[in-house]
Amino acid sequence: MSFYLIVREMKKLLHSLDGCLDKATAHAAAKKYDAEVLLQSRLAPDMLPLVFQIQTACDSAKYAASRVTGKDAPSHPDTEKTIADVRKRIASTTDYLDTYKAADFDGIEGRTVSLPRWEGKSMAAADYLIEQAMPNFFFHVTTSYAILRHNGVDIGKRDYLGPINYR
Amino acid sequence: MSFYLIVREMKKLLHSLDGCLDKATAHAAAKKYDAEVLLQSRLAPDMLPLVFQIQTACDSAKYAASRVTGKDAPSHPDTEKTIADVRKRIASTTDYLDTYKAADFDGIEGRTVSLPRWEGKSMAAADYLIEQAMPNFFFHVTTSYAILRHNGVDIGKRDYLGPINYR
Repeated sequence: MSFYLIVREMKKLLHSLDGCLDKATAHAAAKKYDAEVLLQSRLAPDMLPLVFQIQTACDSAKYAASRVTGKDAPSHPDTEKTIADVRKRIASTTDYLDTYKAADFDGIEGRTVSLPRWEGKSMAAADYLIEQAMPNFFFHVTTSYAILRHNGVDIGKRDYLGPINYR
Repeated sequence: MSFYLIVREMKKLLHSLDGCLDKATAHAAAKKYDAEVLLQSRLAPDMLPLVFQIQTACDSAKYAASRVTGKDAPSHPDTEKTIADVRKRIASTTDYLDTYKAADFDGIEGRTVSLPRWEGKSMAAADYLIEQAMPNFFFHVTTSYAILRHNGVDIGKRDYLGPINYR
């Protein structure tokens, strides 16, 4: 298997998340509330709000590709204020992920990832993908979904999973 | 890469989920409420409750191993009523996953998965793992976490991610 399959699935779920935000905008219009309220919503007072969940989901996917393969990634300074902004952030991320193919992940078993905040520690690139980027990505996508669901947006698990590749 | 790495990570996150339930029990004792109330909690009235989220997370992991490799899986009839019950369900699932090793996933690219409810359709085993079992697993684990978090249980993302394999 190529590790690329995980990144491809992340790209798919970011498209799903964009679809959930489209439904959120429709929900706000139907109920006559300001859709941007959702971006500051959370499930607990000490939880980070939806805008952060989406930014972090995007970054988890971006870094799953760039840090694991050693390629450059576009900068995203987390300045999004509106649903239109976060949808652009998602589009920018999926456009970036579109530049990857399976062969980019060949030989990552020999690579390591190190971040300044790890203070000299490093991780095998494969461990970084499997133990950090992957669970973080799904955590923040699902938390985004949960915040929208909790606020009454009409989404179900199919909106999360997206189309399934049956034969 | 071996697909086994995904199943290994699922096993780790099931242990994390068990730890979150331990904290939930402690929270209930400190606040003097019946911990079993949590198992029927949800984030929206038309969402399935925590007990279902945990059962489904366990099954997603079990089937990520068994259906993908073509091996037998233990039966779990979803009869859990208490936190002690769901913790046993988690333990039974991780015990089962402990019987797998990377070599069990060799050659799954040639396999297919088919379920009665798919009405004759099938999936490549690798697609089943990546597009169904993996996103479903993380969805239900994170939703379980979110329900506990929403109800005030003292958990953070480290309780979800578990120990990280730094060098």
